[in-house]
Amino acid sequence: MPERFGSVVLPNLTLHSGKVLKEARVAYSVNGTPRPDGSNVVVVCHALTGSHHVAGEPVPGLPDAWWDAVVRPGGALDTDRLCVVCCNNLCSPYGSSAPTDTEPGTDHPWGMNFPVVDPHDAALSQKKTLEEIGIDRVAGVVGGSLGGMIALEWAALSAGTLDFAVVLAAPLRLYPQAIAFNGVQRHAITSDPDWKDGAYYPAQGPVKGLANARMLAMITYRSEESFVRRHMRESRNIDEWKGRFDVESYLMHHGKLLTRRFDANCYLYLTKMMDLHDLGRNRADAEAAFEPMRRKNFLTVGINSDILFPAWQVQEVAEAASDAGVRAAYREIRSDAGHDAFLLEVEQVSSILKEFFSSIGFM
Amino acid sequence: MPERFGSVVLPNLTLHSGKVLKEARVAYSVNGTPRPDGSNVVVVCHALTGSHHVAGEPVPGLPDAWWDAVVRPGGALDTDRLCVVCCNNLCSPYGSSAPTDTEPGTDHPWGMNFPVVDPHDAALSQKKTLEEIGIDRVAGVVGGSLGGMIALEWAALSAGTLDFAVVLAAPLRLYPQAIAFNGVQRHAITSDPDWKDGAYYPAQGPVKGLANARMLAMITYRSEESFVRRHMRESRNIDEWKGRFDVESYLMHHGKLLTRRFDANCYLYLTKMMDLHDLGRNRADAEAAFEPMRRKNFLTVGINSDILFPAWQVQEVAEAASDAGVRAAYREIRSDAGHDAFLLEVEQVSSILKEFFSSIGFM
Repeated sequence: MPERFGSVVLPNLTLHSGKVLKEARVAYSVNGTPRPDGSNVVVVCHALTGSHHVAGEPVPGLPDAWWDAVVRPGGALDTDRLCVVCCNNLCSPYGSSAPTDTEPGTDHPWGMNFPVVDPHDAALSQKKTLEEIGIDRVAGVVGGSLGGMIALEWAALSAGTLDFAVVLAAPLRLYPQAIAFNGVQRHAITSDPDWKDGAYYPAQGPVKGLANARMLAMITYRSEESFVRRHMRESRNIDEWKGRFDVESYLMHHGKLLTRRFDANCYLYLTKMMDLHDLGRNRADAEAAFEPMRRKNFLTVGINSDILFPAWQVQEVAEAASDAGVRAAYREIRSDAGHDAFLLEVEQVSSILKEFFSSIGFM
Repeated sequence: MPERFGSVVLPNLTLHSGKVLKEARVAYSVNGTPRPDGSNVVVVCHALTGSHHVAGEPVPGLPDAWWDAVVRPGGALDTDRLCVVCCNNLCSPYGSSAPTDTEPGTDHPWGMNFPVVDPHDAALSQKKTLEEIGIDRVAGVVGGSLGGMIALEWAALSAGTLDFAVVLAAPLRLYPQAIAFNGVQRHAITSDPDWKDGAYYPAQGPVKGLANARMLAMITYRSEESFVRRHMRESRNIDEWKGRFDVESYLMHHGKLLTRRFDANCYLYLTKMMDLHDLGRNRADAEAAFEPMRRKNFLTVGINSDILFPAWQVQEVAEAASDAGVRAAYREIRSDAGHDAFLLEVEQVSSILKEFFSSIGFM
């Protein structure tokens, strides 16, 4: 059965900040068929510039499926038996409420009037979306990077109904170096005169600033080893000012690609969402967030070459969960691919997931 | 005796690329008194945005002295006994030939007509400068970061006349992740519409782009540990779009500071100079460059928390030198300060230098 798409509108979503997001729309995808008791439903949470299009053939207007090798019949998330639901994150330009949308009660896009949203808000919007479509209980939640942060908040919101959670390449809270990288990226966008304080619609806005932000982000998604393997010091005409090293051309290419499919204000809000990630936020501490997962199963998966969220930060999540009485384990992807290994090393990801599901007796 | 300043003009400097830089001006400083045989002369090479003002009181138009605690009477480079000479690097806006200068034979600044220059060219210009002022032989050369790359080229140019070289926090060649960081910084500058292909004079040019470049560079000069210690997740009003984490404000502050004292085109050329660093360039290999240092003394100093030029890259320099028959040693600064530890950890730097000089019987 192919991936199905839908969306719901939540009339008033009260955010972590106390503000209310009116007419919060959430787009979602469903792969597989849910059992009435929800025991085969797995929620998957996507990363910064991804979408709810997880698996299958290209869909116009959405980026290519990001976990096709994992979410498929016979895959680690076997859609012949499981029902995998993925919601588009708030602030993302792929169908959920975002700065690109018309602000309710006005005739203009939200732009920078959109409220600041954190991973807790994203998780809450997704939980309510599943309830809207008749899924009151899910077996587990899985996410990587920003999706892992949202998965952590899902677990904290689960009130004991989740059987498991899997967090790949995400920390307990953003550490300051990651905030710094995001801050420089936002500065590149807001310094671009085409940004116009976010009121650039219907024009495309700060294309150069967004490209620059993506270029920097790509460095943090890769690793020295992967750059050495692919480019080392390959270059063209480097004695001239216009000459370039191949690694520069590679980054420029990826910068340009993102500007063709992403909105700059959305990028600002989504990096801010990431910065706000702190499982202890509005709670006694991070461990308090794990209370609903006590005696439930929990896995975190780090990547040895990740420079954005180093393996020790991901291991720390499992340790904090374990200290809170969760059945937590830590595994590591061995790869020189850097942060994006959770997307690229599908064989290792699949075998880690399968082993985990087997160990907890899931499906 | 206070620091003295001067400058020379080299009529025609043939560059590594084969091009000729006409009327190459090199500004320099002298701390201490040279012996006629040059046996107490130590050349010190400065880093990317530094200057030849190494030690002493503030000097109008130059950034603050960058190694005042090392280059002083009684210091590791004891100016009561040694004569420390530092030349302003080509392409730097502090007195040597640079894109900010009038192009010879024209009435306009060089801008992007300035030829691309590499660390070999910088070292050559400095060696010729010392010859111009009557110093044909120097005892040793010391440099950190870009200054370390130039010091390596000094050693390669020394024709056996140097007794020692010390390289801090610099690699044998730039690896692609460092090139990538520099490439993104250049992209930020050249994407700023105020850059105008470099023809922005007498205006200040791409101030926002230069600030953004410096913000990114500052992340690579620090470390996660130093950001955790200073800022962790401290923030103000972070539920609002205009709220900021302290680490962002810190970077913005440093970005703005640099724009008050540095030229954007110079920044482009100096980061390119760094990218071009490759001791094997125009030679059989990197080891061939060490031939003039055979049986001479060589020390490289890495920093355990350096993310720009990780310790293993600095250790590799010592290993390559050793393989080429140089008396090479490696030492490491233990610090959470990151790359800039070679400027900040003056006590460790001083004790490492003193121990090295003692071991080789220098002064």
